[in-house]
Amino acid sequence: GRKVLIVYAHQEPKSLNGSLKRVAVEELSKQGCSVTVSDLYAMQFEPRATRNDIVGFLHNSEEFNYGVETWEAYKRGALSNDLIEEQKKVQEADLLIFQFPLYWFSMPAIMKGWMDRVLVQGFAFEFPNCYDSGLLKNKLALFSFTTGGGKEMYAKGGTSGDIRYLLWPMQHGIMHFCGVKVLAPHICFAPEYVSEEERKEMLIAWAQRLKTLWKEEPINCSPEWYFK
Amino acid sequence: GRKVLIVYAHQEPKSLNGSLKRVAVEELSKQGCSVTVSDLYAMQFEPRATRNDIVGFLHNSEEFNYGVETWEAYKRGALSNDLIEEQKKVQEADLLIFQFPLYWFSMPAIMKGWMDRVLVQGFAFEFPNCYDSGLLKNKLALFSFTTGGGKEMYAKGGTSGDIRYLLWPMQHGIMHFCGVKVLAPHICFAPEYVSEEERKEMLIAWAQRLKTLWKEEPINCSPEWYFK
Repeated sequence: GRKVLIVYAHQEPKSLNGSLKRVAVEELSKQGCSVTVSDLYAMQFEPRATRNDIVGFLHNSEEFNYGVETWEAYKRGALSNDLIEEQKKVQEADLLIFQFPLYWFSMPAIMKGWMDRVLVQGFAFEFPNCYDSGLLKNKLALFSFTTGGGKEMYAKGGTSGDIRYLLWPMQHGIMHFCGVKVLAPHICFAPEYVSEEERKEMLIAWAQRLKTLWKEEPINCSPEWYFK
Repeated sequence: GRKVLIVYAHQEPKSLNGSLKRVAVEELSKQGCSVTVSDLYAMQFEPRATRNDIVGFLHNSEEFNYGVETWEAYKRGALSNDLIEEQKKVQEADLLIFQFPLYWFSMPAIMKGWMDRVLVQGFAFEFPNCYDSGLLKNKLALFSFTTGGGKEMYAKGGTSGDIRYLLWPMQHGIMHFCGVKVLAPHICFAPEYVSEEERKEMLIAWAQRLKTLWKEEPINCSPEWYFK
């Protein structure tokens, strides 16, 4: 059975994000996948990249460099326990699903903190092993999120521009950089402004997509996909 | 005298980011500006958007909606003190400078949390008052940051794509959305891979730019600037 990690960032289980997460757990489990959820708010996950992420001595205590220190700590097994736990989950997963409400054209800070802290050098990449040769190659990622604004705002020529513009840093800058292949995003536009009936249809559509997810081809994660 | 708020996110005062921040404080103060710094790591600024940001009762305690709750709390003066403090600083400022190391094609989570939590509806925007009519109009913003990768990586056709691609969510999606006009970014490429001498030149170039900053015209913050 395949392994899936859902990294989930919503404060409210009753939210549409909460329901989308639940639907994914149910549908993927039904398929025989083993599903793990990192419920970031429930875990009170720490988003700040600080000296506390390194257990014991520093490589250079004169001038703190987070990237260098976490790289060195990774190599000697001295990252903090919460990071080691998350890295284990990532290592085992065939697919990472990120489920969140869009905050300011990006993921909520608590999820950005997961990226900043978990994907350390040595674990997720190590020069020159980045992009297609990133250390997490052979994994898939999928960004599943809700928006405040409607679909027409996120169109080419809309006030907020093509939704693909804002996917570049997340899909290319993070996932592709680590070698992860990216499936098409799953976007629920403006759930707060539609009927209960339409929100139910959103959940059904997500469950439906998941049924054939493993047959999907990754996107071609290059500027053409985002900006052409 | 003009008022400047520097929102600063680096753990190490001796870092280039620390020096860039110091240079800005010195140069702008010399000009007669009044400069305030929000040193996010030193403040242990909370990046997580939670119920704790609302003092007292909730508008809807059955189903927590962060955007609605902070909007309602703003209107009745019931946001947490740290947010009220930051909003005061923003309100008074003519110019916001964001100083940070680029983490994963974006700002560090601690700074994303500042955006998520400080720029609440009612304070920074209120439909239909967004983009050119956002509530923070008549202010300027400038993103000043360092990168890990070199300039050639962040070129059109480079592995990381044009650096402007990743500025879209920050400059357009956040600042422009709130009505803030955006000055050209200030980017120090790969300071960790250049000589001490070149890092000094980076500081001099920043001080130099700040001397005539108030004469600069904002960029035309539309898709053409980013993706053409």
